Amino acid sequence: MSEVDAARAVDELRELKRRTGNDDGAQRVAWTDTWKTANDWLREELAGIDGVTVDTDAAGNLWATAPGESERFVIVGGHLDSVPDGGWLDGCLNVIAGLEVLRALAPEQRPLTLKLVSWADEEGARFGRSLLGSSAASGTLDPDSVRELKDRDGTALPDALRGHGVELDQALEARRGLDGAAAYLELHIEQGPVLERLGLPLGAVLGTFGVERHAVRFTGQHAHAGSTPMDVRHDAFLAAARSALAFREDAERRDDVRATTGIVKVSPGIVTAFNGTCELSLDQRSLDPDVLADMLATAKQASERIAGEEGCTVAWERIWQIEPLPFDAELIDLADAVIADVAGTSTRLPSGPLHDAAEMARVIPTVMLFVKSLRGLSHTKEEDTPVEDLELSVRALDQLTRRTLDWAA
Amino acid sequence: MSEVDAARAVDELRELKRRTGNDDGAQRVAWTDTWKTANDWLREELAGIDGVTVDTDAAGNLWATAPGESERFVIVGGHLDSVPDGGWLDGCLNVIAGLEVLRALAPEQRPLTLKLVSWADEEGARFGRSLLGSSAASGTLDPDSVRELKDRDGTALPDALRGHGVELDQALEARRGLDGAAAYLELHIEQGPVLERLGLPLGAVLGTFGVERHAVRFTGQHAHAGSTPMDVRHDAFLAAARSALAFREDAERRDDVRATTGIVKVSPGIVTAFNGTCELSLDQRSLDPDVLADMLATAKQASERIAGEEGCTVAWERIWQIEPLPFDAELIDLADAVIADVAGTSTRLPSGPLHDAAEMARVIPTVMLFVKSLRGLSHTKEEDTPVEDLELSVRALDQLTRRTLDWAA
Repeated sequence: MSEVDAARAVDELRELKRRTGNDDGAQRVAWTDTWKTANDWLREELAGIDGVTVDTDAAGNLWATAPGESERFVIVGGHLDSVPDGGWLDGCLNVIAGLEVLRALAPEQRPLTLKLVSWADEEGARFGRSLLGSSAASGTLDPDSVRELKDRDGTALPDALRGHGVELDQALEARRGLDGAAAYLELHIEQGPVLERLGLPLGAVLGTFGVERHAVRFTGQHAHAGSTPMDVRHDAFLAAARSALAFREDAERRDDVRATTGIVKVSPGIVTAFNGTCELSLDQRSLDPDVLADMLATAKQASERIAGEEGCTVAWERIWQIEPLPFDAELIDLADAVIADVAGTSTRLPSGPLHDAAEMARVIPTVMLFVKSLRGLSHTKEEDTPVEDLELSVRALDQLTRRTLDWAA
Repeated sequence: MSEVDAARAVDELRELKRRTGNDDGAQRVAWTDTWKTANDWLREELAGIDGVTVDTDAAGNLWATAPGESERFVIVGGHLDSVPDGGWLDGCLNVIAGLEVLRALAPEQRPLTLKLVSWADEEGARFGRSLLGSSAASGTLDPDSVRELKDRDGTALPDALRGHGVELDQALEARRGLDGAAAYLELHIEQGPVLERLGLPLGAVLGTFGVERHAVRFTGQHAHAGSTPMDVRHDAFLAAARSALAFREDAERRDDVRATTGIVKVSPGIVTAFNGTCELSLDQRSLDPDVLADMLATAKQASERIAGEEGCTVAWERIWQIEPLPFDAELIDLADAVIADVAGTSTRLPSGPLHDAAEMARVIPTVMLFVKSLRGLSHTKEEDTPVEDLELSVRALDQLTRRTLDWAA
């Protein structure tokens, strides 16, 4: 049994950063030339591994296969695409750790086949639809729902995909890639502060939060800052401000959920008037579907009460939702045991962000490993993890892959 | 004594709207072709009045003079410039009512001279500096403070002025226009809801509010909406939301003051992160300088306390300030008496918005008349006042002008 080369994985992360980043961070936005540079580099690395074949599916996902005695297979996955000005680890740690695991295991005899997948467009940074490649593979992608999406230059999503050899209407053929899949494993940086606060390098992930994401639009009547007495105002921003605080208050009294106001747009948004309209985004997350539903109902109720008190109206529009996707209980136990072996202590935590693993959890037994993020930062060039923890995480993925191959056999 | 033709004033307002407005409202932004169209129209109207001479001063203010026995003079003033998509009455009611008063009084013998001034760039809509022409005349304009201002197309203020025959560095020569001035009178729509709520057409204005205008910038640390537990967030928007509510609460417990949050800018302002920075504008107004100073100190204190509680910092930057400018006590009494005569009942109220009259109040006895605004709306095409109230306001200005000429003599 050959040992995984965790130090080489860190070197390769640095190499990828050099090739596809700049002073502002990683620039591997999906369906761009820089993303293609990353994919080409990965293909070259994979081509150097004896016995491994590489191909790209109908959705643009890149697959590497190290055959075993059976055609049934375990998948290790990640994504090379980044947000603009992204971090050096988000997504590509998974792929490069998987590359090293594949390199270590390829020469060995195995009952099952091992596959590495590099998903296309996990971030959705250019067109606003995340998990594109993995949702094509899981079968949840509806081509009609993304056909009209345009990037900020007006390029349509189908045209951008076509430039990279992907026909949107054939993307669902990627589903065939999961025929015979026994399990899906993914290592990712936590992108949050929980492990760092606990003083632990690694954690086993329970699943991905369900998300309710809404646009909440308050309408009052703007008027002049000087001429309008305080008691006759219908100030949409202040109605929104009170509501955003109520959304947080509700989340704070529950156990391990999230409620986030991110977008805040006011109109007219000038110094000499109070605002007649204010649009907020509200993003609510929980691992429990009943809690999530209750959070949404409570938030709607609060916003309507507050809007009424402020002489405003409020309208809700769902932007997006996804149900909580718990991971496989046996694989969680396996991940927990591997972490305890490799790092001494393990913990279990939910994933706040979505991952391709959420799409896989719909169709095959799935688990993720999280490795500590410094200061919880991600989607920024400040994103970082200590090198010793990165190396630990690669070793944990290696161990988890081996044990999962046994488990699935 | 010839009666002022109030109905003709309303016709002329409609004519000006037809010439310089469109479906979105008035478009007479200062230093534009449409503004020039309005000025040219006014010159034509003035040219038709026997004995009246017209000239433009060094700041672009248009003056019409109906000589009396003495060179001392009473001024009636207003402004033709509007905000983009502005209303049909704001500023130009003053000028056109003044035109009709001039038309009525020009043929009459008078001890004092009567002047009508149409100020250049009251709104500051293009370059962000309001009261440009009147502050040149009062002498408070500092050319260096506006020299670098650019419009959104990058045109510099001095270049735009030059296109209309005004040299910024000579603008202060407009001060000479006030040599011999005995009083300044201005009629304006209220731009607020006070008179409508009282059921009165007209009010005598006590002065213009002092203003403290600040940018209030909260800094926390943005992070991912899913991965960051509620209790470790440094959410700059929520710190700002709490502060904006505190600013209002303070204003509501005082007598007839204003506190307005208009600009609200968050960063990163995306659905999947809470915000690391939030900038608010705070515009505070009061007729009492001590109250205004206390409001500002209280707001700063509240924002610092809240920022601390939210794990954020806050920084204040003054955008602009002006002291309260009370009008002349005798002229207020005169205006009050005229309104009681013309409309049956009068009231006295402060002016929330600034007006050119504030600049005049610094240097000569000044008073304003307000006429009711429907629903308090202004700076929008919905701005309106019933025709009977507009006609009443023209007759009140006529009466006030006559009595002020007597008072000054």
